[in-house]
Amino acid sequence: MFAVTILGNNSAIPTPERHPTAQVVTFNDLLLLVDCGEGTQLQLARYKVRRSRIRHILISHLHGDHYFGLIGLINSLSLLGRIEPLTIYGPPELEEILRLQLSAAGTLLKFDLQFVALLPDKTGLLFREKDLDVSYFPTRHRIPCYGFIFHAQRHRRRVVPEQARAYEIPSAYYTRLSEGADYERKDGLLVKNDWVTLPPAPGKKYVYCADTIYDEDLVPHMQGADLVYHETTYLHELEQRAQERFHSTTVQAATLAQRAEAKRLIIGHFSSKYTELQPFLDESRPVFANTDLALEGATYII
Amino acid sequence: MFAVTILGNNSAIPTPERHPTAQVVTFNDLLLLVDCGEGTQLQLARYKVRRSRIRHILISHLHGDHYFGLIGLINSLSLLGRIEPLTIYGPPELEEILRLQLSAAGTLLKFDLQFVALLPDKTGLLFREKDLDVSYFPTRHRIPCYGFIFHAQRHRRRVVPEQARAYEIPSAYYTRLSEGADYERKDGLLVKNDWVTLPPAPGKKYVYCADTIYDEDLVPHMQGADLVYHETTYLHELEQRAQERFHSTTVQAATLAQRAEAKRLIIGHFSSKYTELQPFLDESRPVFANTDLALEGATYII
Repeated sequence: MFAVTILGNNSAIPTPERHPTAQVVTFNDLLLLVDCGEGTQLQLARYKVRRSRIRHILISHLHGDHYFGLIGLINSLSLLGRIEPLTIYGPPELEEILRLQLSAAGTLLKFDLQFVALLPDKTGLLFREKDLDVSYFPTRHRIPCYGFIFHAQRHRRRVVPEQARAYEIPSAYYTRLSEGADYERKDGLLVKNDWVTLPPAPGKKYVYCADTIYDEDLVPHMQGADLVYHETTYLHELEQRAQERFHSTTVQAATLAQRAEAKRLIIGHFSSKYTELQPFLDESRPVFANTDLALEGATYII
Repeated sequence: MFAVTILGNNSAIPTPERHPTAQVVTFNDLLLLVDCGEGTQLQLARYKVRRSRIRHILISHLHGDHYFGLIGLINSLSLLGRIEPLTIYGPPELEEILRLQLSAAGTLLKFDLQFVALLPDKTGLLFREKDLDVSYFPTRHRIPCYGFIFHAQRHRRRVVPEQARAYEIPSAYYTRLSEGADYERKDGLLVKNDWVTLPPAPGKKYVYCADTIYDEDLVPHMQGADLVYHETTYLHELEQRAQERFHSTTVQAATLAQRAEAKRLIIGHFSSKYTELQPFLDESRPVFANTDLALEGATYII
């Protein structure tokens, strides 16, 4: 299971119908929270996401609609008795903000809260856990902002049992084979690894582009992704406003997905001014057919 | 119109049904927000309270369920184009927390955001506006915490027109009379103010006791209040837990209201462990009959 669940698809001002940005990436039993606008803890409850299983939280930037719900979530995790460590990745000021709030409340967490600062001059791999690589890249926004790449890549080669048996390799050795080892038989024959294994299965890639102005420099990061999330704060007619506010339109998001040869695009971060979302699809699909709305509560398989 | 509207009546962990603490005190066209848990801006929208008219925000203490929604509200007010000044009263760390968050977001407010630090060694009047006096007092909680007294007190004496006419005082002079002035007639007679006026109408008093352990020192602050809000995080059977966590029970809140000869009590800040609220009334009313639940969306006339 490799999927993303949308918890909020609205931009800055929350409404009762649409919530600020938050997504949960699920990779088997590993949960990662991506951005955490105000009220995210209630959205997690509403969509029955098990808060306790979130191990990493990635914050793209420090506009409130992407992180004002984080301190409340941490506080609730603490009240609920969490002891498992939690790592937060975000701009460096985030740690100071959270530590100050915890200190003012006299809160002593019973779990280890670690911070990893995202810095403009250091992009690349953030962490690897259980065959999931998570890396980050800068987007162009009014303040420092980062997108994230979730790459589920099995690193083990696939043993072909018929071949392995033909060379009389004991099955107890298959794990070593999957790690790339050769096998030396008692009769002295060296069975080369690639005689009995196939390369790792191709990976799946989800790219979260956070908030951004239209930026062709994002294309290499999105290249060939199975799923891309790109913001569409505005419809096409407000391209000028999007530019001024470092946001994007439907046509711009779809254009990048098309150039990057992505397989599928989901769009969100809709301005509160819009009550109807169908026009977002109507404008995106002619440019990139496989576009869907990032709907709250919906899960998109990667 | 002097009233309080409840926006949230739950304690620490928010639930979809009950929200963290927030109340709006309305005094004619003046709105004051008292505490501001996560999601308060949505509660304001839900109950059609005009955010733009809030001029003062009082934060009792820095546990998250009393202020995590404040930065989001300020941010939205800014996005909505507010220019009217806003004053926030709260523990001193609050200013640093908010300024840090505004700075990290690159937000330049177009309105004047003022802070007044509440300090344990300085209690008393916070401000007076339009015949409303707002003062504060310490409560006993795990961290510094304050209650607030809202005292609507007309300071003008009431002119008795029949009397004033009998002394041939021109009606243009009534404003001066209401301010306490005597009137000297052309024939030399000095009409003493209290011959033609009555004392100001008696005031109305609302006392918000915030979070607190059972504390008889609160009684003088609550004395004779028309309406008291007192927390009842727990039912009576958890008195020991209430004590340990610096919270109160139903019986304790009702006991204080009774001792203070308050006219009416509303109770709230219910622990998330409770789904039914009727037992809170069943336990409070035998001690203090005029008790009601502080229900979200309900307005209580003071």
